[in-house]
Amino acid sequence: MMNLALNTATTRHQWDLRAAVEGCKRHGLSAIVPWRDQVLEIGLEKSSKLLRDSGLAVTGYCRGGMFPANSEAGRRLAIEENRRIIDEAFAIGSPLVVLVCGGLAEDSNDLSGARKMVLDGIHSIINYARSANIKLAIEPLHPMQAAERSCINTLAQANDICDALEPSGSSTLGIAVDVYHVWWDPELKKQIDRAGASRLIGFHLCDWLVPTHHLVTDRGMMGDGVINLESIAISMFNAGYKGTPEVEIFSDYWWSQPADEVINIARKRAQRVLERLF
Amino acid sequence: MMNLALNTATTRHQWDLRAAVEGCKRHGLSAIVPWRDQVLEIGLEKSSKLLRDSGLAVTGYCRGGMFPANSEAGRRLAIEENRRIIDEAFAIGSPLVVLVCGGLAEDSNDLSGARKMVLDGIHSIINYARSANIKLAIEPLHPMQAAERSCINTLAQANDICDALEPSGSSTLGIAVDVYHVWWDPELKKQIDRAGASRLIGFHLCDWLVPTHHLVTDRGMMGDGVINLESIAISMFNAGYKGTPEVEIFSDYWWSQPADEVINIARKRAQRVLERLF
Repeated sequence: MMNLALNTATTRHQWDLRAAVEGCKRHGLSAIVPWRDQVLEIGLEKSSKLLRDSGLAVTGYCRGGMFPANSEAGRRLAIEENRRIIDEAFAIGSPLVVLVCGGLAEDSNDLSGARKMVLDGIHSIINYARSANIKLAIEPLHPMQAAERSCINTLAQANDICDALEPSGSSTLGIAVDVYHVWWDPELKKQIDRAGASRLIGFHLCDWLVPTHHLVTDRGMMGDGVINLESIAISMFNAGYKGTPEVEIFSDYWWSQPADEVINIARKRAQRVLERLF
Repeated sequence: MMNLALNTATTRHQWDLRAAVEGCKRHGLSAIVPWRDQVLEIGLEKSSKLLRDSGLAVTGYCRGGMFPANSEAGRRLAIEENRRIIDEAFAIGSPLVVLVCGGLAEDSNDLSGARKMVLDGIHSIINYARSANIKLAIEPLHPMQAAERSCINTLAQANDICDALEPSGSSTLGIAVDVYHVWWDPELKKQIDRAGASRLIGFHLCDWLVPTHHLVTDRGMMGDGVINLESIAISMFNAGYKGTPEVEIFSDYWWSQPADEVINIARKRAQRVLERLF
């Protein structure tokens, strides 16, 4: 068995949660990171039982966040939604919720305002998460997603949020490092080191294709693009990351391929990157 | 007449250099920033005469850069090419060359190596530029261009290069701030302040559309997107920028519209952003 998780977004157009669980087992992956819509599709209770019975580790749950909104009521709704997501993570046995923090509020161009709303939003759920023993993995998203998906676009920002909300050191907050979002960052290594073992709670693999044809759904399979995955993996290892790396590929191309083939290739490619480290 | 330049990329599919010059005059723009291919299309000598006779200020020349290459010979070629571009900028009366520094070298995934090649490349042409009294405007490009067009993706990197190569303060090196490339940067204001009046030698306007359909050719007209242009203009003004702002819109949509209409709209939209400042 390989210390590797399938993020179910990778096969979302081929497999439902049940099929993804079977796929992970068939291909010898140790873990799974389900998306919420796929969990709710078959129901929280059935999903929980399915995952528990599978023998797979559930190493994450996607996704919370989306805090900015242009009204007090909208921001409150987002916080309530995030609490439900924390409950669901607890129910399926995930140690963490991945936070895609949200972009600009609707009809707004106030980026620093949105960033403040994200800080406030995380602040509003941190105690709830702590009491459920669920970690919150802040995932910086590529700057090209700043408007629509997340105004947290660098590891430095994620580290700053952790510093601000858990000044005495992290226990509930952490960071998910997705190579696709951060590979370009001149401070990548420095900010991975700054995060350190306690905050590094997610490591997502895919690749950046040249050329890239779509801002969301044209990610590459590891090895097909230009990200120096080995170098990032070494940085993660050296900083003390000890988790289960995860394959997460949003790709119209790979969604059109047989899922077993996708996983087969992903497993081999991930192995090349990770084998001497994790 | 308005203190505004047309970057000729904005109308490249409608107008050649001659038509762009006439367009600028017709619409009361004070300046023009030609692209090299459009200059060479009618010849350097004719372009120089055309621009000199036009009464327009030439406030930039696009573009130099593209330093990384996977061989010593390739890097030397790039440097020679940049020297020719500096000569051309001198010939057409431009005070500066815009540097799009280049992405990864071919078949390479060594991003920090590419960044080193950019530093070395600029180092290799700075004296040549200085002796021609041509400034080099380092333009950080959006991180989504890190692989293909520029591995210089933040104002902090551009400032670092200036610090490294002109430690006693800038005179030949400067920075072009294109709102499209930097609007997302949490350090935007800080790094504009750090650059200061002497380094701020370019200010490019367009907008970020939501959604964005193409990584290169889907820029928006000012006001049609989510960039807080006023706020960036105020930062530039407060930092002492005193140049001629420039409209540069790569857009399949705007390239399909009558150029006079494009300029008419661009002028009005730019006026709203700039009128109280520049």
